Amino acid sequence: MQHTSLVTGGAGFIGSHVARQLLKLNHQVIILDDLSGGFKENIPEGCIFIQGSITDVDLVNAIFEKYNFDYVYHLAAYAAEGLSHFIRRFNYQNNLIGSVNLINASVNHNIKCFIFTSSIAVYGTQDLPLKESQKPQPEDPYGIAKYAVEMDLENAHKMFGLDYIIFRPHNVYGPGQNIGDKYRNVVGIFMNQILKGEPLTIFGDGEQTRAFTYIDDVAPYIAGSFDLLNKTDTSAPLSGREAIFNIGSDSEITVKKLALEIGKAMQKEAQITHLDQREEVVHAYSDHSHFNRVFNPKPSTSLAEGLAKTVAWVKKHGARESSTFKNIEIQKNLPKSWQ
Amino acid sequence: MQHTSLVTGGAGFIGSHVARQLLKLNHQVIILDDLSGGFKENIPEGCIFIQGSITDVDLVNAIFEKYNFDYVYHLAAYAAEGLSHFIRRFNYQNNLIGSVNLINASVNHNIKCFIFTSSIAVYGTQDLPLKESQKPQPEDPYGIAKYAVEMDLENAHKMFGLDYIIFRPHNVYGPGQNIGDKYRNVVGIFMNQILKGEPLTIFGDGEQTRAFTYIDDVAPYIAGSFDLLNKTDTSAPLSGREAIFNIGSDSEITVKKLALEIGKAMQKEAQITHLDQREEVVHAYSDHSHFNRVFNPKPSTSLAEGLAKTVAWVKKHGARESSTFKNIEIQKNLPKSWQ
Repeated sequence: MQHTSLVTGGAGFIGSHVARQLLKLNHQVIILDDLSGGFKENIPEGCIFIQGSITDVDLVNAIFEKYNFDYVYHLAAYAAEGLSHFIRRFNYQNNLIGSVNLINASVNHNIKCFIFTSSIAVYGTQDLPLKESQKPQPEDPYGIAKYAVEMDLENAHKMFGLDYIIFRPHNVYGPGQNIGDKYRNVVGIFMNQILKGEPLTIFGDGEQTRAFTYIDDVAPYIAGSFDLLNKTDTSAPLSGREAIFNIGSDSEITVKKLALEIGKAMQKEAQITHLDQREEVVHAYSDHSHFNRVFNPKPSTSLAEGLAKTVAWVKKHGARESSTFKNIEIQKNLPKSWQ
Repeated sequence: MQHTSLVTGGAGFIGSHVARQLLKLNHQVIILDDLSGGFKENIPEGCIFIQGSITDVDLVNAIFEKYNFDYVYHLAAYAAEGLSHFIRRFNYQNNLIGSVNLINASVNHNIKCFIFTSSIAVYGTQDLPLKESQKPQPEDPYGIAKYAVEMDLENAHKMFGLDYIIFRPHNVYGPGQNIGDKYRNVVGIFMNQILKGEPLTIFGDGEQTRAFTYIDDVAPYIAGSFDLLNKTDTSAPLSGREAIFNIGSDSEITVKKLALEIGKAMQKEAQITHLDQREEVVHAYSDHSHFNRVFNPKPSTSLAEGLAKTVAWVKKHGARESSTFKNIEIQKNLPKSWQ
């Protein structure tokens, strides 16, 4: 029997890869995306595409009415974590209210499982490596919104029996990413800057570390997770922490070193400009033992290999102009490069 | 120098008492209230009243532009905790997005302190008594929204220097409360039912406990808290847990026993009808040592005295018809009495 799945944000970077994987798994895939951060060209052939926003409650309800979804893969989000301080209202409207529209509809239409892409941002500054057993203490509106959705899902499970799975990926990069977005994803930002012959911009000293994760080490597992509920020994659904998975690379690297690696991959010497330090978590990498135990994944892609594949794609597509976010809500302390 | 204070929800129960206290403290008081849960008659004479919603971002910005607020007392909320499961979107829109509009404006206009009335609901089920040092783990959308606002305030303080004070009151009752609201505040519900000659309705066995708090043990301290920042030894503002205060009664009582006490206070024998148990925290009372240390409050009002004062007011005002909430988002598992 063919499953029908909704993929929100399916024209975006991770969403389009998840949609492609779901097609391989023989799902009928409906994509809902407002193209605010995604691109039509990302949408895999074979998907039904609906242009619209998860914040449009009437549209969301109409789509659930029309398609009898088995699974909801919720990846739509405005994901510029650093910018979220300055666009708080917009952040919560998109990332929380939009998600709640989907949760309401999923309860009302008795879908089988809600698969939510949260973020490592829910943790905030904590002992490393970050573990699912640690209580989140997000430090920016983006992380707060993601954590609120996680809590709402837990509640919807308890109240209404809505099954869910939550992934907390970190620093995912690869072909299909929006390198023209100056507010997020340092891998794309660096590549775009090199293509344009500009120096690479680093906030602070560049000693902050992240574990960069290649898309192929993430998307297939998110897509395949719908089957997880059927694989448990009992009919009891996953719940609470059991349903939450850190996902991503185990190899952390400083942002400064990343700049050099990207220069190498693009065969250009990287010029670096240091900008004022901004408010951000300094070190963030997470423990993946829960994920490894449950998913038994393939060996992960090395940074060199992942960057090489990404560079190949980026070179084919060329540099992108970064558009400036129009409706900044708070100008105070906004980094100069974002003004 | 006279201070100018905004009181959101100032036509509501706690808000109108806080506004009255602020007038006593010689503040100029501007009330913003959409009258969805409050009443014009609650508004203390001497306040400037603006009818409108905190979710109306243009209105909020215009008010901040017009009045040069020193302090913001944010008490507006749709506070039906039990109903919040079924009106998730509405809950987050009112209680989170509305709050964020105020936080944005407070940052942009450099107000001196943002005083936020959160709720004991942020705690969820935890070891009792509930302490500010415990990490919140809210169990319903109402508590999740309140906690998200708390986190957002902490972030706004760190990012933009916005000072804040958070109160987490519980089960406040007294003159001025909306006894016609069938979704919340069991003291008012019971009194209204007795006035109408109806049996008192209890969810489950009535053995759930709460610590009911008389309004006069809460409102004066919330109102007076603006001065707290000036009283600290250093100029360093309160922050983090130091700025969060449990506030309310130390005497917990079962809901069943409360019904008997209210019968006594109203000189009617209480008939009790038990409804199906609903999803709610069973026991909730909190530790007030932090509040006591900082505020050095007067001895609190006994339940008998508080109920007597409330009954006197309620008898003067008579029973109220409970209106039914129109836009239920999820009908599944909605308690029958709310359908």
